[in-house]
Amino acid sequence: MLGGGPASWIGRMHRSAAELDGWWRVVGGVFSGDPARSREGGATLGFDRERCYGGIDELIAKERTRSDPAEAVAIMTPNDTHYPLAAAALDAGLDVVCDKPVTHDAAQARDLVSRARRHGRVFAITHGYSAYPMTRYARHLVEAGAIGALRYVQVEYIQSGLAARIEDNRRDNRLEWLLDPSRSGLALVMSAIGCHAQHLASFVTGRRVTRVCADALSVVPDREVTDTVSALLRFDGGVAGTFTAFQAAAGSENDIRLRVYGENGMLDWNHRECSILRVAKLNEGPRVVTRGDADLPPAIAALGRSPRGHPEGLREAFANLYAEVAQERMLRSLGEPVPALGYPRIEDGAHTMAFIEACVASNGAWVEIARA
Amino acid sequence: MLGGGPASWIGRMHRSAAELDGWWRVVGGVFSGDPARSREGGATLGFDRERCYGGIDELIAKERTRSDPAEAVAIMTPNDTHYPLAAAALDAGLDVVCDKPVTHDAAQARDLVSRARRHGRVFAITHGYSAYPMTRYARHLVEAGAIGALRYVQVEYIQSGLAARIEDNRRDNRLEWLLDPSRSGLALVMSAIGCHAQHLASFVTGRRVTRVCADALSVVPDREVTDTVSALLRFDGGVAGTFTAFQAAAGSENDIRLRVYGENGMLDWNHRECSILRVAKLNEGPRVVTRGDADLPPAIAALGRSPRGHPEGLREAFANLYAEVAQERMLRSLGEPVPALGYPRIEDGAHTMAFIEACVASNGAWVEIARA
Amino acid sequence: MLGGGPASWIGRMHRSAAELDGWWRVVGGVFSGDPARSREGGATLGFDRERCYGGIDELIAKERTRSDPAEAVAIMTPNDTHYPLAAAALDAGLDVVCDKPVTHDAAQARDLVSRARRHGRVFAITHGYSAYPMTRYARHLVEAGAIGALRYVQVEYIQSGLAARIEDNRRDNRLEWLLDPSRSGLALVMSAIGCHAQHLASFVTGRRVTRVCADALSVVPDREVTDTVSALLRFDGGVAGTFTAFQAAAGSENDIRLRVYGENGMLDWNHRECSILRVAKLNEGPRVVTRGDADLPPAIAALGRSPRGHPEGLREAFANLYAEVAQERMLRSLGEPVPALGYPRIEDGAHTMAFIEACVASNGAWVEIARA
Amino acid sequence: MLGGGPASWIGRMHRSAAELDGWWRVVGGVFSGDPARSREGGATLGFDRERCYGGIDELIAKERTRSDPAEAVAIMTPNDTHYPLAAAALDAGLDVVCDKPVTHDAAQARDLVSRARRHGRVFAITHGYSAYPMTRYARHLVEAGAIGALRYVQVEYIQSGLAARIEDNRRDNRLEWLLDPSRSGLALVMSAIGCHAQHLASFVTGRRVTRVCADALSVVPDREVTDTVSALLRFDGGVAGTFTAFQAAAGSENDIRLRVYGENGMLDWNHRECSILRVAKLNEGPRVVTRGDADLPPAIAALGRSPRGHPEGLREAFANLYAEVAQERMLRSLGEPVPALGYPRIEDGAHTMAFIEACVASNGAWVEIARA
Repeated sequence: MLGGGPASWIGRMHRSAAELDGWWRVVGGVFSGDPARSREGGATLGFDRERCYGGIDELIAKERTRSDPAEAVAIMTPNDTHYPLAAAALDAGLDVVCDKPVTHDAAQARDLVSRARRHGRVFAITHGYSAYPMTRYARHLVEAGAIGALRYVQVEYIQSGLAARIEDNRRDNRLEWLLDPSRSGLALVMSAIGCHAQHLASFVTGRRVTRVCADALSVVPDREVTDTVSALLRFDGGVAGTFTAFQAAAGSENDIRLRVYGENGMLDWNHRECSILRVAKLNEGPRVVTRGDADLPPAIAALGRSPRGHPEGLREAFANLYAEVAQERMLRSLGEPVPALGYPRIEDGAHTMAFIEACVASNGAWVEIARA
Repeated sequence: MLGGGPASWIGRMHRSAAELDGWWRVVGGVFSGDPARSREGGATLGFDRERCYGGIDELIAKERTRSDPAEAVAIMTPNDTHYPLAAAALDAGLDVVCDKPVTHDAAQARDLVSRARRHGRVFAITHGYSAYPMTRYARHLVEAGAIGALRYVQVEYIQSGLAARIEDNRRDNRLEWLLDPSRSGLALVMSAIGCHAQHLASFVTGRRVTRVCADALSVVPDREVTDTVSALLRFDGGVAGTFTAFQAAAGSENDIRLRVYGENGMLDWNHRECSILRVAKLNEGPRVVTRGDADLPPAIAALGRSPRGHPEGLREAFANLYAEVAQERMLRSLGEPVPALGYPRIEDGAHTMAFIEACVASNGAWVEIARA
Repeated sequence: MLGGGPASWIGRMHRSAAELDGWWRVVGGVFSGDPARSREGGATLGFDRERCYGGIDELIAKERTRSDPAEAVAIMTPNDTHYPLAAAALDAGLDVVCDKPVTHDAAQARDLVSRARRHGRVFAITHGYSAYPMTRYARHLVEAGAIGALRYVQVEYIQSGLAARIEDNRRDNRLEWLLDPSRSGLALVMSAIGCHAQHLASFVTGRRVTRVCADALSVVPDREVTDTVSALLRFDGGVAGTFTAFQAAAGSENDIRLRVYGENGMLDWNHRECSILRVAKLNEGPRVVTRGDADLPPAIAALGRSPRGHPEGLREAFANLYAEVAQERMLRSLGEPVPALGYPRIEDGAHTMAFIEACVASNGAWVEIARA
Repeated sequence: MLGGGPASWIGRMHRSAAELDGWWRVVGGVFSGDPARSREGGATLGFDRERCYGGIDELIAKERTRSDPAEAVAIMTPNDTHYPLAAAALDAGLDVVCDKPVTHDAAQARDLVSRARRHGRVFAITHGYSAYPMTRYARHLVEAGAIGALRYVQVEYIQSGLAARIEDNRRDNRLEWLLDPSRSGLALVMSAIGCHAQHLASFVTGRRVTRVCADALSVVPDREVTDTVSALLRFDGGVAGTFTAFQAAAGSENDIRLRVYGENGMLDWNHRECSILRVAKLNEGPRVVTRGDADLPPAIAALGRSPRGHPEGLREAFANLYAEVAQERMLRSLGEPVPALGYPRIEDGAHTMAFIEACVASNGAWVEIARA
């Protein structure tokens, strides 16, 4: 683990998700940018002190000497450190699971694509929202033609994380890097939540964004970082859509919603009801599909771990990603063919970074997004 | 009544709404573009045959000779006839209640503004969605500062009316004028539903749209009329927002949703649950306000006609508009001051037509909308 | 009209519902127990002063002398007057539409059954909840076997009408008769709401209640009237179920819910979403059926008056009852066969009164309910 | 662990929940009633083969000889084995976490109360539904008087587990013990789900059931086990309520709902939306409280592990129980005072078993339930 000290909720999320199905064992890591705090934090978490390191270089050097070296790293550090940590890990022959935004810009992301390919490494990005049984089922239905030719896509991520003026609370130094655009990314709202929304839309529709006409701004007065991006979209094949990432939404929670319309019907998923998918056909009310429905494809049903009606959440979605990375590693090591597993890859991250760059550049004009 | 023959659901809606509270009595009209069918249709509806006319000119001429002449007309004819009928009625000294789109373009609407002012007439547009108790309450909360300074507005109107290829069914001649852009308006989706959405957003926020960057298109192949408009917005005072009017949504119903975000909270209203308003404050879940809540302002509570929990619908909202037009007429006739009643006026219609023109012209670039 | 003066919301509901589709014209009535107030109230409502009567006897006597006499009465007076008014109207050869509870007890109701039959009159009870398109569709699905053999029925009516101690506000003399059990009925909660719940369950399932084990009580301290009845049920054919009528529910609105379970699936309807019906099959999530769905039987679709997605409410449900009474009258007068129209009849009311008597008598023991 | 072999979802639930926060480490157990399968299953799950035992006696004997012996057992075996396993564990000085129903009858449960007290052991029952942040918050609100004096309680657990005739599929031998009343308990629906519902109602209201009038039956033809229990209730202090446990509900999922009404308002929680609690005050619509709301008591907020809007489920609720058991153990071992932690105890289980016995005995008559 890189990041995820004792006070980190996302650290515990990664650990429990990785170990949930027995595919992984978390053995140590670098738990803080400060070497002493890293060692202490790792020990507090119950890791062998020998494997609580002061930094990525020490981790790589020491693990290399072990008979049971680490095989992968999971990166959950501040945004500006993702790229150097991921590059170092790939160069050391480690597989990588990395939080978003995967890099600062598209060039860095393309560089990671190259490194991952050169070293033959697995590189997964933890867009957990795409790994719920019901977002996976949405993708399945689109692929299977259940709603016919696609016509329109609406994706939005509305959150209250930047609704209050957290700028006035800079003493809370966990926020300092967030409010520094050179550290948090090209547009804070895109680094924080917008990247998830674009990925989800592209994942479910199986289409990349080809053009965007965006309005990136701060709706909270006297704010340096971007808290809002609204955009008009075109996807592969000319499918139209809209995109909203709005992080200054007082009164919202963490509200991702994706609607995909086809010639015969529509799909509607929202994060507050993560275990259901609404599927509506022309001139009918919606059918509410749940992850326990009897007619789900077995591969979708297998993404749930308890009987119908037993709530599961983001932890289980993260665990689905970790399981797929493990499965791909296993199949690769066996020389077996690897099916198209659903976890988000560095190539997806490179597209996302290109999308973010286009949104920032657009200013109310259409911008083309080159294929990576 | 102009339009609204025996087979017309909107005709019955107007009649029952106008008479619901005893403010109006519907006495006759022109019920078809065909004089004979008009007279027959009116009789079928139970009107005095003497007041079932072959056309607007006959209506004006004959009513003028009566001791109990009609005082107002309600227009619910095909879109391209709204302007000439409304102009004639105003010139004849009649008040007007008119369905949307009020005219073909902004110039016509500005002309009606002039005529209404010149003749001192009331001119109401039946944007019924703005007359539900809960959309009225939303406006009240914004005005009262309940959510603080406005930050962002999302309005959408998603409908399935153009999801199927109705073009293939032209024998149904009721559709013929709809599919002819010269008759149905500058952009069909805007004439049909988009105008309602813009009006609702402007009504609740108390702000006109000042700039728009829009994407107007047809998502159904080989379609001449526009079925989709997505847009980025600025309202008065620089408030940002988004607008979606999408009428080719297989699987939707008649789904209008308005969300208004302020510095302290948000308002969320959707048409499927027309009798509730969700009001969420920063870092709280939403409170569900219903039209029977004890602490509503009396003027809002009075917009409902039955105790809490007894469903009311669009008919009662229409009745609210008709009641306000009657009240304004009465106050004017008494020389009493007229408060700012909520019904949509021809000035609002002129703004809406300017908004539609800007959406059509934008093509992915910002277009300014002049104040009427 | 008997009752329904200017201040009465239910009076306006009856009038507008009766006239909504043109089947009826409301021409006069008795609008108060006080003759002078009745005449004044009727005039205020716009009725011909000649037909605003001081009492039922005057109404019957005077109408009889007219060339265009009233053909039916609608009764919406305090509960204890329903029986004598209905009996007098039947004896005078008038058809009757009567609010619930139709009488004080089962014997009175059986007497009305006899009179209605003897005089060949139509007698409808305004259980409006059973006339929504979706409660009608629920009945259709049960009849058609869509959920297979019935297994269990849950009906509840939860309301806040008696949550506050309205006893402390006796100056409000509208309440006086309500709080007097000799006037409001055998159990206030049953007269007010419980009768609707039982009727709805019996209507949708097509089954009468055969046995009940009930717990009738007041949950508000120092209350003489009954505000709560919970009960275990058996319906015709041995189908089990539960019944709850609870009127002291602070925080509720007017929440009727009916769930019917069969061997293959279930139906779920609740009043807050009166225009949808949830239909769930074994091991599937629910399908949300709306009154605009393309595959509804035409007779169900015809119970709505506007396109899908345009909210309708209780007024339209009442109008459905009035339309059916008119249709039955017309068919009878033509000597045509009368189909099994859905409006509630006095025979249903007699069963309801027997059910109420059984609930009051039960005190936690099974009580049989004789067939009327 | 006793039970919870490789194919068991509840086994994985227990393991991951116990370890989620680092309070517990699962080290071995008995994973099948068959000694060889137990040892193999435990190894498959990754446990040290030395600690994969053939039975409870072997486990106790061998663990006793270790320097790092097990300190507690978690029991997730078929229902009829809970009592002997728990008794043996208590007698061996082990703390116990046990699935429901804790025993076959009330006498066994009272015996476990005695043993736990005699040996000074912690005994927790995994009623996970009571450990969601929002069911805990409901209890907090009742205790704090937020809705005033209690008036009425509705609890129901509706599930489809016995909707199909699983009797016809006896080859599936996992079901065999379920369909044998001598093994699955006094009433299958109560062992399976009804016990959870009663516990939840008693937990949130802080009140035991004092009287019950129940209707226990099988609604599926030719069924020996009980699939439905409906009941009228009295709680401590005379609070009235209703109880429904219905497991033959085709079309349902795992639908627990609890409504608690007080003089000033009501609480409404349902399992499909486990992360919210609806709180409605008199004459107001409900406020939707979520586990991330800013004004929750810190002890409630601490029951969530991720920021607001990140879905959590039953796993995290189980983890809350395991954390509390660990905390109580730690405080006891330190000689510190132990606060009233929320996990369900064997005393609660004894009350539940007495409630089940009363339901089975009632047959439509009031039965008193003695205090344990």
